[in-house]
Amino acid sequence: MAEQLDVGLLSPVRAGTAVEEATGDQAWLAAMLAAEAALVAAQADLGTVPQHVAETIAKAARAGGIDARTVALAARENANPVVALVAAFTAVVAEFDPMAADYVHRGSTSQDVFDTGAMLVAKRALELIREDIEDTLRHLEELAERHRDTPMAGRTLALQATPTTFGLKAAGWREILLQAASQIDELLEDGLPVSLGGAAGTMAGYLEYARIDGGHEIGQEELVAAFARRTGLAPARLPWHSLRGPIARIGQTLAFTAGALGKIAVDVLVLVRSEIGEVAEPSKEGRGASSAMPHKRNPVLATMIRSAALQLPALASVLQQALLSEDERAGGVWQSEWSALRDCLRLAGGAAATAAELARGLVVDESRMRRNLELGGAQLATERLAARLAPSLGKARAKTFVTKLSGEAAATGTPLVLLAAERCDLEYTEVAALLDPTTYLGAASDLVVRAIS
Amino acid sequence: MAEQLDVGLLSPVRAGTAVEEATGDQAWLAAMLAAEAALVAAQADLGTVPQHVAETIAKAARAGGIDARTVALAARENANPVVALVAAFTAVVAEFDPMAADYVHRGSTSQDVFDTGAMLVAKRALELIREDIEDTLRHLEELAERHRDTPMAGRTLALQATPTTFGLKAAGWREILLQAASQIDELLEDGLPVSLGGAAGTMAGYLEYARIDGGHEIGQEELVAAFARRTGLAPARLPWHSLRGPIARIGQTLAFTAGALGKIAVDVLVLVRSEIGEVAEPSKEGRGASSAMPHKRNPVLATMIRSAALQLPALASVLQQALLSEDERAGGVWQSEWSALRDCLRLAGGAAATAAELARGLVVDESRMRRNLELGGAQLATERLAARLAPSLGKARAKTFVTKLSGEAAATGTPLVLLAAERCDLEYTEVAALLDPTTYLGAASDLVVRAIS
Amino acid sequence: MAEQLDVGLLSPVRAGTAVEEATGDQAWLAAMLAAEAALVAAQADLGTVPQHVAETIAKAARAGGIDARTVALAARENANPVVALVAAFTAVVAEFDPMAADYVHRGSTSQDVFDTGAMLVAKRALELIREDIEDTLRHLEELAERHRDTPMAGRTLALQATPTTFGLKAAGWREILLQAASQIDELLEDGLPVSLGGAAGTMAGYLEYARIDGGHEIGQEELVAAFARRTGLAPARLPWHSLRGPIARIGQTLAFTAGALGKIAVDVLVLVRSEIGEVAEPSKEGRGASSAMPHKRNPVLATMIRSAALQLPALASVLQQALLSEDERAGGVWQSEWSALRDCLRLAGGAAATAAELARGLVVDESRMRRNLELGGAQLATERLAARLAPSLGKARAKTFVTKLSGEAAATGTPLVLLAAERCDLEYTEVAALLDPTTYLGAASDLVVRAIS
Amino acid sequence: MAEQLDVGLLSPVRAGTAVEEATGDQAWLAAMLAAEAALVAAQADLGTVPQHVAETIAKAARAGGIDARTVALAARENANPVVALVAAFTAVVAEFDPMAADYVHRGSTSQDVFDTGAMLVAKRALELIREDIEDTLRHLEELAERHRDTPMAGRTLALQATPTTFGLKAAGWREILLQAASQIDELLEDGLPVSLGGAAGTMAGYLEYARIDGGHEIGQEELVAAFARRTGLAPARLPWHSLRGPIARIGQTLAFTAGALGKIAVDVLVLVRSEIGEVAEPSKEGRGASSAMPHKRNPVLATMIRSAALQLPALASVLQQALLSEDERAGGVWQSEWSALRDCLRLAGGAAATAAELARGLVVDESRMRRNLELGGAQLATERLAARLAPSLGKARAKTFVTKLSGEAAATGTPLVLLAAERCDLEYTEVAALLDPTTYLGAASDLVVRAIS
Repeated sequence: MAEQLDVGLLSPVRAGTAVEEATGDQAWLAAMLAAEAALVAAQADLGTVPQHVAETIAKAARAGGIDARTVALAARENANPVVALVAAFTAVVAEFDPMAADYVHRGSTSQDVFDTGAMLVAKRALELIREDIEDTLRHLEELAERHRDTPMAGRTLALQATPTTFGLKAAGWREILLQAASQIDELLEDGLPVSLGGAAGTMAGYLEYARIDGGHEIGQEELVAAFARRTGLAPARLPWHSLRGPIARIGQTLAFTAGALGKIAVDVLVLVRSEIGEVAEPSKEGRGASSAMPHKRNPVLATMIRSAALQLPALASVLQQALLSEDERAGGVWQSEWSALRDCLRLAGGAAATAAELARGLVVDESRMRRNLELGGAQLATERLAARLAPSLGKARAKTFVTKLSGEAAATGTPLVLLAAERCDLEYTEVAALLDPTTYLGAASDLVVRAIS
Repeated sequence: MAEQLDVGLLSPVRAGTAVEEATGDQAWLAAMLAAEAALVAAQADLGTVPQHVAETIAKAARAGGIDARTVALAARENANPVVALVAAFTAVVAEFDPMAADYVHRGSTSQDVFDTGAMLVAKRALELIREDIEDTLRHLEELAERHRDTPMAGRTLALQATPTTFGLKAAGWREILLQAASQIDELLEDGLPVSLGGAAGTMAGYLEYARIDGGHEIGQEELVAAFARRTGLAPARLPWHSLRGPIARIGQTLAFTAGALGKIAVDVLVLVRSEIGEVAEPSKEGRGASSAMPHKRNPVLATMIRSAALQLPALASVLQQALLSEDERAGGVWQSEWSALRDCLRLAGGAAATAAELARGLVVDESRMRRNLELGGAQLATERLAARLAPSLGKARAKTFVTKLSGEAAATGTPLVLLAAERCDLEYTEVAALLDPTTYLGAASDLVVRAIS
Repeated sequence: MAEQLDVGLLSPVRAGTAVEEATGDQAWLAAMLAAEAALVAAQADLGTVPQHVAETIAKAARAGGIDARTVALAARENANPVVALVAAFTAVVAEFDPMAADYVHRGSTSQDVFDTGAMLVAKRALELIREDIEDTLRHLEELAERHRDTPMAGRTLALQATPTTFGLKAAGWREILLQAASQIDELLEDGLPVSLGGAAGTMAGYLEYARIDGGHEIGQEELVAAFARRTGLAPARLPWHSLRGPIARIGQTLAFTAGALGKIAVDVLVLVRSEIGEVAEPSKEGRGASSAMPHKRNPVLATMIRSAALQLPALASVLQQALLSEDERAGGVWQSEWSALRDCLRLAGGAAATAAELARGLVVDESRMRRNLELGGAQLATERLAARLAPSLGKARAKTFVTKLSGEAAATGTPLVLLAAERCDLEYTEVAALLDPTTYLGAASDLVVRAIS
Repeated sequence: MAEQLDVGLLSPVRAGTAVEEATGDQAWLAAMLAAEAALVAAQADLGTVPQHVAETIAKAARAGGIDARTVALAARENANPVVALVAAFTAVVAEFDPMAADYVHRGSTSQDVFDTGAMLVAKRALELIREDIEDTLRHLEELAERHRDTPMAGRTLALQATPTTFGLKAAGWREILLQAASQIDELLEDGLPVSLGGAAGTMAGYLEYARIDGGHEIGQEELVAAFARRTGLAPARLPWHSLRGPIARIGQTLAFTAGALGKIAVDVLVLVRSEIGEVAEPSKEGRGASSAMPHKRNPVLATMIRSAALQLPALASVLQQALLSEDERAGGVWQSEWSALRDCLRLAGGAAATAAELARGLVVDESRMRRNLELGGAQLATERLAARLAPSLGKARAKTFVTKLSGEAAATGTPLVLLAAERCDLEYTEVAALLDPTTYLGAASDLVVRAIS
């Protein structure tokens, strides 16, 4: 049953999300038809095709009724689905008006229709992703602000290091996601380009038909501009059949985006650990149930986001590789992009939607953070003690001295504060203050303010 | 419309192939149900579950009726589809026999069902792929044999080098594909393993239920063996929830397979070039038509194979990366494998089916090979002339001398044979024989015989 | 012999290039020392460290004398080279002035020094790459202009399609490379950031020492700004120990760059083919010699560029993957970036230098282009004939008709022009003009003008 | 300074290991000279070259004295280092015996020398890796045996799940590493092949010179066998200049190996976490010191192993991609393998050496494991309680019931054992026994025995 080849069973991160539907085969087919309609509309705008023909074709494009599976199967004969799609679409148009049918795909080539359709799909998907990121950014900003001064253990190479705040962590998540958002914004502002090259990228077919149909010469720039206007995409400086910059750039942007979201996920997967327990995913009846263990509430949102983020770098690398497209169209290289591009959009989109849900409801356990901080306790502020001793002992000797103290405290179980007070020439209260991790937060608070301002 | 999310529109290489259906969501769901049925059958074999219960559950598993899309959507709550599938399946079983329903998924965990199902899908797909490869190997053997002595230009770094034969090229294609076949054979002979670990890989749940249900202890080895027997898979030495060797190995095998097929494709894409024209794809009405250019017959089979081969290395790298699975089950790493595994199976499978078609009907143009060989002509056998002169001049001087001659011939247009006869102390007929590329074939013929024997 | 572990033997594309030296271990070590010196200079600027100390440390940093191999070996004890480097550097400083030694690495952490050093290396390398790209762009512009109207066969899916011009091809190369250049420009304009986080990213150590050493509070922003000024890098909005955006972005930019250069290379590798011969690499005594074949002149520049472009997507994917850095510093993820980052810089840099050489001297054979065009001849302009016939026959019938004609001409050997003149209701001269491929160039000339203006 | 281009500064995982030296440029150069010497020795074995010439050339090959950097720089002229190497080596031989110089590289081609040299390097490196793995396997077996019954929390999706034992975890590490070892063993048993194809893979040059030099025909099989014998490598069934199976297979084997080692590393990086603390890396004076924090002992061995494992999948994918080698030698594809192959060998080798050190000294804290287990406590054995209740309540109701109990206990703080005893119709002692996690270990002990037997 072709209709059950992929309904999201193997990809929970995107199952049922808006971006899944926006990138499905049905959506792709509709986008290619929209490209065909926009082409003839552009030709009509320049007076080389009758307006009513363009309207008929637009109507037919919206009417649908072409079975994607039939087109997919036929695509094996041409290594692309457009040849079969144009045939089927021409028949649909002919039912509306036989004369109009002759104006479908006039002067065009498969790649123009496919790539323009792909850009329409990508644009819509990127907009959806951008919205979910905006949502996530807002929630992260709230978390950063609310927990600006919530101390927790900083962790490096898996060990408690010096203290930090949860606000700074959330601000960091927001920062890396902002970088992703800014890449998407630039991409959308520069505009995804229409493809309009004709058979070998000279636009010869388009211009030839224009001359014959319209009885006058048109400029390539005019036609590209009209097509861009009609699709809502950007004009391309040159036909890009084998200049795959636009695809490669989308790929890299999405890999970055998924990586930024993945950073949040891997942090959450540490912080939810049973032995750490500093955050929890938003709870929801039935969510995170295990098929075996009654007591578990699995961090499913972070799990799904991470699953996407682990796939994107490889998928995006396929799109980078496709820059190596020989000739005016590279057989097999072009085709290698299609699924990879969709999967990049879908997985980044699914991750973005899931991250919005995660950020919105993330539960922060301040008291657990404080308790975990007590685990490392004074040890986490030894850097401050060493700094305090540096003027008298010299930095190097101070560090060696504190390292020894720290080791001795760990080995003997004597509280480090006691030991330090005993051995250093300092008041107990000063030592205790120096070694209090909850006040050794550096510029954490300032950094948060600066980052979210 | 979920049913049109992916019907193959973006992946002509696998659209409509047997492997596509065998790896679809519907097939995957059926395989997971088969795993559930096999589990209870194994439990019945060991006497811890009533036989008739096992039969009822088996019947229910074959009955189908569970909507994959519904399961896929529910999977977001658990980051895996098994929890929802078990619920739905339990309801189906209950319709057959409410008592039997309680024996579904007894002692089990999502990953056991998912991974065993995945192995069932992979096994079936690998068998299909292996058949298509067998087919291709046979055709390549015929090509190698038939063209054992068909001279053609050998090409290195894009230039005509010394001559070779088309038979040797075909034997090479067969050789690399044999290596792939042998990897698949070893994989299938070693056996894809069942997954049977229970919640955290100790099999505790299985053994506990067995004790309670059957009133006697059973050994873990017995249960694994019975499950393996019932599924047709291999027993695993240890539960492998986070020891992802089986998946990684499938990934590497398929990447190799696609690469071997891709080698054939990239060679064909060179040889079909308009300016070379030494082979052509099997012709078929309508095949390879361009949407723009009436005169073209595109090499669509090689194009589709190459498109798959360009994706596999990256997809397989996701599966290698998943070896880094922390803990007893790694959230997000496990999930990252699913689509990548399926895509590897599908794309390699599509490429294998397509290659069988290509190898079966490849058209070889011997006269064009000969004509192209004349292009390089005597230049392609200068190595032989240099060897001939080596005893008298020394190898180094002979090479320098011949290089100069060769350059002069190229620059002045004087035939190299004439020039060489004039300058060397050799008879014209000997020079002409030495510089005849069609006889400078080294061990090509022998190599073919040895390779296909 | 450590000094011969890697001298470029396995990477001709970058051996001896400026970027190779700029990214070597020696350069990396020097950059880390420069970071140490800039840090103390910044601290001196804010008055928390004596000026003369900063000057002494700067002098010591320039003095060198630290053996990179010794540091590399010691790095195994800490999984990073900075601990050992700081120890060695402190000793060097102490020889200048024992008191100054105590101010080295004050408040700092390994990652700040390493990452700031990496940014210094990357910046220098990117500037070198950008210069070579500028050079290449200029040469490509000249090629595009000179050959604006030089007709050649357009090729799609390996076959001659419709004609194009070599100028348009060169303009396309320039276009994709311009996109790469613009990514590099944006990256350099946004600025590569200093790293200044201290132990766990709160800057606590820096501020603590500043207070103690300087007797007054300093702001984190001030210190970051001073450090940025002293290094010539940009300030970072937040410490980025585990927010790996800057590295990921460099990776994606270089993958794009190598892909753009690789596009040129794969085109050249087609066009130099013995059977095509439309371009040749710049000749140079000894260049491209084969160790076996006297007559060959291998396209070594394109070969080397392609070799780099084939590696970059995978290497850059390692950097994208590293966005998944858990905690305040992720053990092993950070370390996974180092070689990959350098290899991306080196390979893209080598490819850029090589491409400049290729573009500068590329030999274009217009007459061979014309001869190859005659191979396809009238067939390459059938699209124009079909367009001409569309008003009378309808587009679809016209295409079918011309396809049949085209097939018949190919099958029978009758010149297509003759056949077409006979069967269509058109004058012979018009048919001949319509089917002349050298005049069917569409907007090629205009496109070039627009692209290079 | 070329000699400091790469001395391991950016790759602590391999700095100073045996495999680093065995794969360095110097080693590679020596291996290529060994290939040249073996070739002439084989030719002498077949009587086509004088024995004393072969001896002289062997002596010269061992003598060294060729500067790798000079060769590397010259390699840019040919896109491979062999042309320059042969020239330099010929000069060295000539110093021993001018007559012998003429027999260097007789009939040969660059790729034969390079690829045979690469196989010699790879073989040596694989043997070193295999030894370190053997070492690691032994240590892991001891750990598995010693801790066969040491209970610890099983963890899935970051949460404590059901209990397991540390012995089972160690047995799992051993299992996945055994799979890697078995891949390496098969690779070495099948044998890495010599390359012996001559200019275009027909062996023409070899046979031609043999005929001229020896005055008699020799068979290709004889020569391949003699060359294999002389190098200690395996004969190849066919020349494999563009059949890159041997390289791809090494790549996949090493990716698997690094992944297996990486699995150990990511587990260790969880278990050393400050809040978990169940294992520690072997301690060593100075090891794991932080440049900032006196109290830390970083898990540097696991960190380095993970860093390698994160790079291998991408690097190996470059080698898979290179299977797409067109023609008899593919310009740029061949070259793309070189660094990637070396890096795969080096990084896997460094990881193997590091893992041996880690496994040898891993410190296991049984009491901490027990304390962590108490954290989850009775909750970790609820599966057993549910199973116990299944006969009376039915499996589904039993699970729901226990889930509710578990939730109530968590919410109210009432011990789950108390609550369960109160609500179930069971004795307190039975409930307490059922919910004791330290005895709910399933088949863990048996599985370990089976795995290591």
